[in-house]
Amino acid sequence: MEIHPYLTTKTLVPENQESPIHFLRSQKIFPLPYFYRRNHFSYPFLLPNLYYLTIYGLVHHPSYFHLEQLKLMPSKSFVIPLECAGNQRDKFIPKVFGEQWKGGAMSQAEWKGVPLKDILSKACLQKDAKEVVFIGADCGRRTDTVGVFYYARSLPIAKALHPDTMIAYECNGQPIPFKHGYPLRLIVPGWYAMASVKWLQQIIVIDQPFTGPFQAVDYIYYPHKNSDANKKPVTTINVNSLIQFPLDFSIHDTGTIVIEGIAWTGNGVITQVEISVDNGETWKEATLASQHDEPYAWTQWSFVWEAYEKGEYIILAKATDSSGRTQPFAAMWNRKGYGYNAVQKVHVKIE
Amino acid sequence: MEIHPYLTTKTLVPENQESPIHFLRSQKIFPLPYFYRRNHFSYPFLLPNLYYLTIYGLVHHPSYFHLEQLKLMPSKSFVIPLECAGNQRDKFIPKVFGEQWKGGAMSQAEWKGVPLKDILSKACLQKDAKEVVFIGADCGRRTDTVGVFYYARSLPIAKALHPDTMIAYECNGQPIPFKHGYPLRLIVPGWYAMASVKWLQQIIVIDQPFTGPFQAVDYIYYPHKNSDANKKPVTTINVNSLIQFPLDFSIHDTGTIVIEGIAWTGNGVITQVEISVDNGETWKEATLASQHDEPYAWTQWSFVWEAYEKGEYIILAKATDSSGRTQPFAAMWNRKGYGYNAVQKVHVKIE
Repeated sequence: MEIHPYLTTKTLVPENQESPIHFLRSQKIFPLPYFYRRNHFSYPFLLPNLYYLTIYGLVHHPSYFHLEQLKLMPSKSFVIPLECAGNQRDKFIPKVFGEQWKGGAMSQAEWKGVPLKDILSKACLQKDAKEVVFIGADCGRRTDTVGVFYYARSLPIAKALHPDTMIAYECNGQPIPFKHGYPLRLIVPGWYAMASVKWLQQIIVIDQPFTGPFQAVDYIYYPHKNSDANKKPVTTINVNSLIQFPLDFSIHDTGTIVIEGIAWTGNGVITQVEISVDNGETWKEATLASQHDEPYAWTQWSFVWEAYEKGEYIILAKATDSSGRTQPFAAMWNRKGYGYNAVQKVHVKIE
Repeated sequence: MEIHPYLTTKTLVPENQESPIHFLRSQKIFPLPYFYRRNHFSYPFLLPNLYYLTIYGLVHHPSYFHLEQLKLMPSKSFVIPLECAGNQRDKFIPKVFGEQWKGGAMSQAEWKGVPLKDILSKACLQKDAKEVVFIGADCGRRTDTVGVFYYARSLPIAKALHPDTMIAYECNGQPIPFKHGYPLRLIVPGWYAMASVKWLQQIIVIDQPFTGPFQAVDYIYYPHKNSDANKKPVTTINVNSLIQFPLDFSIHDTGTIVIEGIAWTGNGVITQVEISVDNGETWKEATLASQHDEPYAWTQWSFVWEAYEKGEYIILAKATDSSGRTQPFAAMWNRKGYGYNAVQKVHVKIE
């Protein structure tokens, strides 16, 4: 009798579905059907044979590239977790509006492509270039403004020129699946995935901050409910962890329980994961799996817990990265619910 | 581009997956792949050609029936919602341990079978018969006791003899899918679905209360956390409703929003569904769809809301049935989290 996990449906139009991440333990790379799907609009209509990536604006050589040309250029590939900025939004207290993502607005794959800097270098940036705008083929209306918008995001020049920021054309050794950006997707390692624009069609170099709604309205941390004071853009992935097993509010027999999960960061590598099985009174270190020289991949961890005494327990997991960041006990609340990264908490009953 | 909802995975062993009930609006009968799956154990191994339903105990004519024999007997069919007693368990406050079902531990299908009373009549009940025990083919261990148990439940004689309690062999016009009880499943209209034993193999008539763990330990309302005082068995489905659209904490444009959902009860029919869009200050009646003479089917309802003013709203839905029961504002808390049926509450933001 075959038993499979499934994506969890959040909305169908646009399609937003979570990865069954708790049921994909010890999988460094997720099968593509289990990759989470997050869209702002309906899927775009593309004519692949006529598909060119154009680059213009403040460049000396406005140009365009066909997928086949890009494949002939030197490439890089990395195992990269993509995490929606709204992942775990459902855990904010007070609750915030928006897709109620639990832990599965996140998946990991091997992405292969051409360093963006090589493309920019061919186009030859002008001296006053400040930002690079990336425009996808998907477009539609918003609930908060009148008009039709393409999904578009910018990067500051420094991030655009980072040697690992890439125009990807392969995912797990295959052409990128259509739902995940075929034929070309920008991949920005270390940033939340709103930066990794799917169905990338146009690159425009500009000399001022980009003000499209997905840059200047969404993907902004607003710390206050009724004012925009102290807002700042969502960029680098926070240090974070997920307990994949056991599940929250699950019931177990007495005996050995292997607590398992992943930890990740957009700034360096994970150096430590601490586990508490007594709601934070005492902590012990989890065992971290080897990263095999993958600088961006999440770190799998495990912790053997001898649960011989019946009762209710609260298990916590707390990750620390090489930049010195540690998960906070409470996530920084913000009105749109981005960047949740509080210490993980799972309730279990041993009976 | 095809977009489908999926089951939501709760556990894989045993398989427990929720129906994407919010995305199956206006579907009186769910496609079987979208039927929720709720198991206590791994799937059983059956040898269908050797499959007989045996009936023994306090009967004058102990006997057995093959599926093909049952198909030749007079049959009944009804559209019946099956609802797990733990449906919406995730909403109890304080939280309770167990599968964290949201609203989708519930599905509706057309079930066809032989009235159980006809089988009991052929076997001829003895005078001191008090309960009828139904044993499925699935078995395994429990976390709270030593030993291996079959999944087994009993009915009092009166419910067993109810003309609509049936031994089903078809679901939506096909043989029952294996995961839902092939070849034979007891169907008990009006009771929570723990009573509708899958892979039914044995029927035993007894003269005292059945004390198997799925009868005397599980599926009991325990109103207190640390004592078993005032416990009572889970039987009839509570009057209840579900708001399928809009989704909780979703964001919408100003304009007309059709609030849609279902209401159901194990005791009579739904007579009224009231909707509030101001967190209970004012109420209006929803429009109920015709039941087409289906005595057990859930009732689809809808309510047109002119949401012209921006802001945050709390939508409530409250159903009443023909037995005079109305959904309470707080569900009766119980330690194992059964029978949640509080007034539905959905938060939306109009912007």
